[in-house]
Amino acid sequence: MKTLKFTKMHGLGNDFMVIDGIGQSFDPTDAPLTQWADRHKGIGFDQLLLVEKPQSDAVDFRYRIFNADGSEVEQCGNGARCFVRFVVDKGLTDKHEIVVETAKGIIVPRLTEKGLVTVNMGKPRFRPSEIPFTPASDEVEDDVTHIVLIGLESVPVSCVNMGNPHAVIMVDDVETAPVEHWGEAIESHEQFPERVNVGFMQVVDKQHIRLRVYERGVGETQACGTGACAAVVAGVRLDLLEAGVPVRASLPGGDLYITWQEGTDVMMTGPVETVFEGELQY
Amino acid sequence: MKTLKFTKMHGLGNDFMVIDGIGQSFDPTDAPLTQWADRHKGIGFDQLLLVEKPQSDAVDFRYRIFNADGSEVEQCGNGARCFVRFVVDKGLTDKHEIVVETAKGIIVPRLTEKGLVTVNMGKPRFRPSEIPFTPASDEVEDDVTHIVLIGLESVPVSCVNMGNPHAVIMVDDVETAPVEHWGEAIESHEQFPERVNVGFMQVVDKQHIRLRVYERGVGETQACGTGACAAVVAGVRLDLLEAGVPVRASLPGGDLYITWQEGTDVMMTGPVETVFEGELQY
Repeated sequence: MKTLKFTKMHGLGNDFMVIDGIGQSFDPTDAPLTQWADRHKGIGFDQLLLVEKPQSDAVDFRYRIFNADGSEVEQCGNGARCFVRFVVDKGLTDKHEIVVETAKGIIVPRLTEKGLVTVNMGKPRFRPSEIPFTPASDEVEDDVTHIVLIGLESVPVSCVNMGNPHAVIMVDDVETAPVEHWGEAIESHEQFPERVNVGFMQVVDKQHIRLRVYERGVGETQACGTGACAAVVAGVRLDLLEAGVPVRASLPGGDLYITWQEGTDVMMTGPVETVFEGELQY
Repeated sequence: MKTLKFTKMHGLGNDFMVIDGIGQSFDPTDAPLTQWADRHKGIGFDQLLLVEKPQSDAVDFRYRIFNADGSEVEQCGNGARCFVRFVVDKGLTDKHEIVVETAKGIIVPRLTEKGLVTVNMGKPRFRPSEIPFTPASDEVEDDVTHIVLIGLESVPVSCVNMGNPHAVIMVDDVETAPVEHWGEAIESHEQFPERVNVGFMQVVDKQHIRLRVYERGVGETQACGTGACAAVVAGVRLDLLEAGVPVRASLPGGDLYITWQEGTDVMMTGPVETVFEGELQY
């Protein structure tokens, strides 16, 4: 029987079981992750985040993220925010800008003065082959807006890859947008060979959008970080949003702040909450 | 800012946040129960169970159960099982048969040698007015089997009140039973003025049933304790099950053991699991 201490955290409702793998030994291959992920019989979480010592002295920490089925996944913006608050709150570091090794590479998330965390989400990609997206004709190459046909309707979408594929649609009102109907149809449209996340964006003003995202394989979610990045990037390219300043993206689960201008990385700032400290035996 | 220790437990997936209100002070009216009940942003639970000192020396403890919306509810079998394991595991008592005051009255749950807990679920009631059920004609009064019409189909049901109303239907195979379709139709059938929980029971042998329950206002659930009691009571009255010995009720979430004979209280024995110990600030 082993004893394990953990912390339950969330970023806009995307929730994590966070484990300090430095102060205690923990082997994720030897733990009942699926059982722990169960929301009735276990702790309940979207992902498990494991903080470890780095493999090199050049970085401060390493972290790994696991899905409920035990599979290891690449870093995500919400996980990076939880990681920063965790290592600072636990006194594992006194830095506020932390160099960390993830499965995807090195990232440098930063704790802001207001307790929010800023994460570098990398560069957006737009070429059809990078989305991936199959244009209807050879003429379209690196354009902002593509057209997808749903039945007989023609829907203008902006395609952005933020590590995963996004199709962003401008709408007048996110409340009445056909998120379920169009989301389902576009997600599995033949022009997206790897399927696509579908964002419905309402521009409130040049520094504020409202956004609902239909996530690939999941349906509508409360707060999709890469979806917020893709939407703001698409809006900046269409000159509907201001470049180089934080644009507030209001999602059903809460607000994120996205900063981007042509040629730079996307910076995402958002909240993170510690819910409770836990201890279990397994 | 207050600090609160709690324990997360479940009985066949019906999960509880359990609080020792004796060793620490806790006022449920002054706590964000709805926020804690949230499965993504909170701890996540079906009910909160609060253990308190009794109001009289004649009993060992008092406990109260709250729903996620903060409303106080009557005792339930799964909650009583968690309560017993909690007070024994925490060393709050060295008894294994515990006299406890609940919103419904005094109950005496008992920890068995195998670590299961037996709870007295009270006497079943059968009269139409006690279910409540409105018979189609005046001839039916205190019968075991009533008939409900769904569209043009005629479905024989056994009506049992276990503190809440149940309609039990015998089926050849619970796997293929029309739980969703019939459950929805019968739950809101005009002959049940307070609606009804609908059980689909397959008799495996005289000491074993398989059961699926469509709960009133909820839909199909993993393990309905009163539904298991109602099904075994109906089966005993129809002479399909043995009276006075534990009958195993296999529900999707696990097994319960129900003992009943005419004129006695229903005794329910089942498992309970401690998932983790938690501490939070609010």
